[in-house]
Amino acid sequence: MLDGPPTSGAAGALMAAEISEQPQVWAGILADGRREIAAVAEVIRGYQPRFVMFIARGSSDHAALYAKYLVEIALGLPAGLASPSTMTTYGARPDLRGVLVVGVSQSGGSPDLVRSLEIGRAQGALTLSVTNSPGSALAEAAELHLSVRAGPERAVAATKSYTAQLLTLFMLVDRLRGGNGSVADELPRWGTELLAAESAIHDIAVRYRFAQRLVVTGRGYSYPTAREAALKLMETSYISAQAFSAADLLHGPLAMIDAQVPVLTVIADGPGGRAMRSVLPRLLEVGADVLVVGHPAAAAEATIGVELPPGIAEELSPIVEILPFQQLALQLAIARGENPDAPRGLRKVTETL
Amino acid sequence: MLDGPPTSGAAGALMAAEISEQPQVWAGILADGRREIAAVAEVIRGYQPRFVMFIARGSSDHAALYAKYLVEIALGLPAGLASPSTMTTYGARPDLRGVLVVGVSQSGGSPDLVRSLEIGRAQGALTLSVTNSPGSALAEAAELHLSVRAGPERAVAATKSYTAQLLTLFMLVDRLRGGNGSVADELPRWGTELLAAESAIHDIAVRYRFAQRLVVTGRGYSYPTAREAALKLMETSYISAQAFSAADLLHGPLAMIDAQVPVLTVIADGPGGRAMRSVLPRLLEVGADVLVVGHPAAAAEATIGVELPPGIAEELSPIVEILPFQQLALQLAIARGENPDAPRGLRKVTETL
Repeated sequence: MLDGPPTSGAAGALMAAEISEQPQVWAGILADGRREIAAVAEVIRGYQPRFVMFIARGSSDHAALYAKYLVEIALGLPAGLASPSTMTTYGARPDLRGVLVVGVSQSGGSPDLVRSLEIGRAQGALTLSVTNSPGSALAEAAELHLSVRAGPERAVAATKSYTAQLLTLFMLVDRLRGGNGSVADELPRWGTELLAAESAIHDIAVRYRFAQRLVVTGRGYSYPTAREAALKLMETSYISAQAFSAADLLHGPLAMIDAQVPVLTVIADGPGGRAMRSVLPRLLEVGADVLVVGHPAAAAEATIGVELPPGIAEELSPIVEILPFQQLALQLAIARGENPDAPRGLRKVTETL
Repeated sequence: MLDGPPTSGAAGALMAAEISEQPQVWAGILADGRREIAAVAEVIRGYQPRFVMFIARGSSDHAALYAKYLVEIALGLPAGLASPSTMTTYGARPDLRGVLVVGVSQSGGSPDLVRSLEIGRAQGALTLSVTNSPGSALAEAAELHLSVRAGPERAVAATKSYTAQLLTLFMLVDRLRGGNGSVADELPRWGTELLAAESAIHDIAVRYRFAQRLVVTGRGYSYPTAREAALKLMETSYISAQAFSAADLLHGPLAMIDAQVPVLTVIADGPGGRAMRSVLPRLLEVGADVLVVGHPAAAAEATIGVELPPGIAEELSPIVEILPFQQLALQLAIARGENPDAPRGLRKVTETL
């Protein structure tokens, strides 16, 4: 049984420190990022894109998926996630005039993303890179750049750079729809409040220590959270964690859920959360052990509930709701005798070609 | 130990019959589907779409992902997979003038897909439905319709309707790029040849009977195959099967692979296959039990190889390469004492709203 976060030098100390820095990173974006975001928004507004194409991998792909929902819902623009291999491996040269191509990457160093942005630019797109490395090759390749201002990230599992990407992309979309970003002002306070409830996470890590596999599910804005949570659990605890949108879950994977499979759900306060909540009875009916990270009323319906601070708009909730899952990935890895700061077989910059 | 496919009335008999019908279904599309496909292609060519948006769920979503690669590579048009919830749950009304919206569904009965096509049409898109049910609500909702001509599908796990969707979408894209579809003429022969090698699949089912979880991976055109294979294994055998593009696998999930996790790979003969093949040494290095379904040279490098007939173009390979995985899902379910024709908790038409 653990009594608190790992201390300096211990297994998981890097990841624990980076998780706890997040409210401060967000405050930095809110204070210092606005000017750069406003300038980029101005260029995009002048360009009037007819379509937005995101290119990313790993955690950054989950940030891009969140941004795809935002662009479609808040801006009324069609958006898609590119398969980088179509341009790099297969040599596709799509007509991208009038398209905004957005590359999202922590390191800005993946060669296939850099190449995709270069091709995008040559094919007529307006290109934007969103990275944690202003001097990176990806930042150089795109016409526009946004820094997510997370500071150096040393743990292999991305945490603070992920939520910094979400917030930066949110601020950009909010600016594009005419907002001034002030709806995000409470985020650092919500994050600090949620991170303080860490002892509940220890108990959940003890509960899941011997689980062979688990499922994470959410709907709409919270579907990227489910995917990111599953990735964190896989890369630190080596547990088989599968993410599904609640709608897809009912199309097949529900068959493999029984009392041996914990189901971790995310239920924000809004239309996606309501759609997700309606699936809870079917999960409980097949005997699943259901964790809800969500607003208080939804959390009360679960086997175990982790309450989100009240009053968070659903479009902002992904920035906050991932925090308990990051803490769980950390604590579960330690409970299982692993070092989440140095997952076996992984490198911080993945060079897919 | 099984000696052959289940006989009529036995567990899995429906699924076995539908798997074996596939070469005949493809021959039907090649013979009788061309005229309808040519007529639809003519309307699309006149419309000159600037972007193609696919809407689908479950197996049909994997067919849509295959078509997305085809559209991007063969037609040079940007394409995306829509998240239906943005329009249905969140009420987004994107500007879809100049966009081709394609709804793919076996039954054509999912209310959220029907609603998405209706909204797409109202927002200015040209709409096409691709279904196995010409009289369905989805077929009614779209301006254009293509029937995949698979005949009634009675097993809950989609098999013949999936490859019929792939072939119909391939024929449409081939027509749009000026082809006459004759490159697909050999498909029924390849399928018949591959299905006949069933005894090797029995041995693999015995080998994986007690596996707790497995990973399926492919790259490019074969990534949809990996996703569909994982879904079949989950819905019939209740095994935890996770699909990753080989590029994403290196971004985190590789950490959870060890000698206890079978890794099923798809390696077609082409650029995506070459990129996938370069990942094999990393998988073997961490001790994984690696199955390759692929061209002979790649199959020879695996722990276990299932050879695809030689000479299949990579863009056509997904139609053929899923067959051994369908057989494996069937045989593994039976080996584990389950009835693949009636997976627990699933319905043939999933009504997500």
